[in-house]
Amino acid sequence: MWPPAASWKALGVVSLLLALGLEGATWFLLYFLRERRRRRSSLPEVLFFPAPPTCTEGLLRPSRPVPCVCGLPHTESSLSRLMLRLLSARRTLELCLFSFSNPQLARTVLLLHKRRVQVRLIADSDYMAVRGSQVGVLRKAGIEVRHDQHAGYMHHKFAVVDKTVLITGSLNWTTQAIQTNRENILILEDAVVVKAFLEEFERIWQEYDPACYVFFPGRK
Amino acid sequence: MWPPAASWKALGVVSLLLALGLEGATWFLLYFLRERRRRRSSLPEVLFFPAPPTCTEGLLRPSRPVPCVCGLPHTESSLSRLMLRLLSARRTLELCLFSFSNPQLARTVLLLHKRRVQVRLIADSDYMAVRGSQVGVLRKAGIEVRHDQHAGYMHHKFAVVDKTVLITGSLNWTTQAIQTNRENILILEDAVVVKAFLEEFERIWQEYDPACYVFFPGRK
Repeated sequence: MWPPAASWKALGVVSLLLALGLEGATWFLLYFLRERRRRRSSLPEVLFFPAPPTCTEGLLRPSRPVPCVCGLPHTESSLSRLMLRLLSARRTLELCLFSFSNPQLARTVLLLHKRRVQVRLIADSDYMAVRGSQVGVLRKAGIEVRHDQHAGYMHHKFAVVDKTVLITGSLNWTTQAIQTNRENILILEDAVVVKAFLEEFERIWQEYDPACYVFFPGRK
Repeated sequence: MWPPAASWKALGVVSLLLALGLEGATWFLLYFLRERRRRRSSLPEVLFFPAPPTCTEGLLRPSRPVPCVCGLPHTESSLSRLMLRLLSARRTLELCLFSFSNPQLARTVLLLHKRRVQVRLIADSDYMAVRGSQVGVLRKAGIEVRHDQHAGYMHHKFAVVDKTVLITGSLNWTTQAIQTNRENILILEDAVVVKAFLEEFERIWQEYDPACYVFFPGRK
C-alpha cells in the first residue's frame, strides 16, 4: 500500500491541528482586532448638551500642573469631552462651522495651531463677524479661514481630526448653545462617512477660495 | 499496528477537508453577512445640501402611478433620499426637530401617520409657531407633539426610524435650509449610537410631558 500508514497518520494529525488551529486563530484575530479598536478609540461617542459650566484649564494648560483654584466644578462634561477629542489631533484639523464664539473651543484650536497641527476653518460670512465671534482671533493667529459669499448659510457644524475622526451634530460652537440648548454631538471614525465629509470640506474649500471672490457683483 | 492504516487515511482526508471547508465557510459567511447588510441597508449614508428642487410626488402618492407632469426635474435628490429613508418606517418614528416647515417632509410624516406608524414629535416652543411651521398641521392630524418651556432652544435635528435607524445632522427641516444652505444629514444604524439618541428622546419626551407644564410661573 502506498503511501505508507505513517504518511496518512502524519497527514491526519497535521490536518486536524490545522483545522482547529486555523479556525481558532481566525476567530481570535477577529475578536482581538475588534476589542483593540473598541478599547483604543471608544468610538462612536455621543455627547448631549446643555453641559453645566466646568473648569477646562487643566486641558488648556497641560504644561502648568498646578491645580486650578477657580470656583467652577473640576469634573468632566460634554464640553471637556469635545475638547479632549479635538486635542487628540496630531497632524490636521478641518473645521466647518456655522458659528464659532465659544472661548474655550477657540483656545483649544489655538493650542493645536501652536502644536503645529495644520488647522483649516470654513466659516459662514454672516456669523463670522458677529459680536463675540472667535473667527477673527483664529485668523489673526495665522489660521487659514475661508467663508462663503452666498445668501444661504454655511450651516455645517463639523470637524475632522487627523482625517480619521468626524465630529458632527447640531451644536454650534457658541457658549449659549453649549450651556443652554438641547444639542447633540456624534463622534465616529467610520471610513466611508469620514471620506464623504472630507470631500465636502474640500469642495467648499475650493469654492470659497479668495481668488474666486466677487467684490463688486454689480460691475461687469 | 493499531489503528489500521485505513482509519488514519480517513482521519487525514476528513480533517483536511474539515480544515479547508471550515475556514472557507467562515470567511464566506462573514463576507456574505457583510455584503447582505451593505446591500440591504446601504448604510451609513451621507446627504449634503443644498438640494435643487425636484418633484417628489412619486414618493408621496405611490397609489397614483400616473407620472407627474409638473415642470420640476423628476430625478433623485438629497431631499428625496431623506424622504425615502423616512418612508421605510413600518412601526415607529421619533422626531426631535428644532424647526419643521418643509411641506414635503410634513406630507411624508402625515403619510406615515396614515399608515399607522406611531409618530411622536418633539419641537422647539419658539419655532413651532412661526409662519409656515408644519407642527400645527401634524398636531391637528392627530400626531402627538411635545415642546419645551425653556429659554434655551430645543436645537436637535434628528429622527429615529423603527428604533433602528438614526437620521441626524445640521439640517433644519425647512425649505430654505434644504434649497439654500450648506447642510449635512447622516443616516446610520449603529446600535450604540441609536440607543443613545433614543434615550435622549425619551428623557426629553418625559421632561416635556404637558402634565409638567407651568402656565403661570410667577404664581405660587
